[in-house]
Amino acid sequence: MGTGSSGSAARASRTSRPRVAVLRVGHRPGRDPRLTTHVALVARAFGAERMYLNPPDEHVAEALEGVRRRWGGTFRVVGAPSWRDVVRLHPGPVVHLTMYGTPVARLLPRLRRAKEVLLVVGGAKVPGPLYGAATFNASVGSQPHSEVAALAVVLRELLGIPGTGALPGARQRIVPTARGKSVVPVPAGAA
Amino acid sequence: MGTGSSGSAARASRTSRPRVAVLRVGHRPGRDPRLTTHVALVARAFGAERMYLNPPDEHVAEALEGVRRRWGGTFRVVGAPSWRDVVRLHPGPVVHLTMYGTPVARLLPRLRRAKEVLLVVGGAKVPGPLYGAATFNASVGSQPHSEVAALAVVLRELLGIPGTGALPGARQRIVPTARGKSVVPVPAGAA
Repeated sequence: MGTGSSGSAARASRTSRPRVAVLRVGHRPGRDPRLTTHVALVARAFGAERMYLNPPDEHVAEALEGVRRRWGGTFRVVGAPSWRDVVRLHPGPVVHLTMYGTPVARLLPRLRRAKEVLLVVGGAKVPGPLYGAATFNASVGSQPHSEVAALAVVLRELLGIPGTGALPGARQRIVPTARGKSVVPVPAGAA
Repeated sequence: MGTGSSGSAARASRTSRPRVAVLRVGHRPGRDPRLTTHVALVARAFGAERMYLNPPDEHVAEALEGVRRRWGGTFRVVGAPSWRDVVRLHPGPVVHLTMYGTPVARLLPRLRRAKEVLLVVGGAKVPGPLYGAATFNASVGSQPHSEVAALAVVLRELLGIPGTGALPGARQRIVPTARGKSVVPVPAGAA
């Protein structure tokens, strides 16, 4: 690919990157909490600024607030009663990730130059009008797989593989380790 | 490539790629079917040859058999009563994907040169001895996210973004489309 391969070095070397937000549509409160939580955790860990959740679900929002308190950063889950409003008000390209779309690789040069990108991922139910409302319908391959995977791969293409440093405000951080687990506290004000 | 999975320019341009298998450990039958199914679908769509599932779960195996019948390829879910046996018998590097590990980017050159790679992903419960049994414990960033995402990104780094062609034996395929959905039958013997 054209951007150099990976790592925080790749991130730091790119002078400007788009700001990315995620919109999760078709969430089913009570049925999808784990998958939607995975979508939100991926959005946060791979550098999106927020995830709009349609319909809203306080349980997912609270779970991510707990993650933010421990692990830092400013990522938020924002309840979205109307997915149309989120799409209509977004000031940049809206990319609906769907197995039926055109290959995302063709869009990447354009998306990397954008200032603000909205990535939309569906669950089991995707509203039909979304295909018309999005700027692009884009696929990661043409096989059935997972909205969690599609989101992760596109965020990786846009923003690079996430680095390993603590985020601002973290109470704890991981020390990358060849064997086992190392989690250490972060002194207040240090991250 | 040796496995006859799918064809994209990125894939075809690499002269040799590792054969990749996935091991899902700590699956909880009845609790994790959707997440484990997502792991399996990602393994298949991103070019792994099979997924060992520990403990075995016929429901997941049957779901993926249904996908194979419709969408082709040779991917299989193999029930694994012992994760240790799968790890011990694997003829190449065993990479346990964990948020606590060392950055995966450092390993990629070595993994790309390997003939056979086993990627191990855990669920909520990961057996402690796995950290010692794996050749490498590797992370995609050092924030909590998702085994589905970690697997997708590492497969993408090793094998490229999946292509859009039908797999051998497919009954149907997607025609990538800017708006809407286009799924067409594949005549027998054509894929």
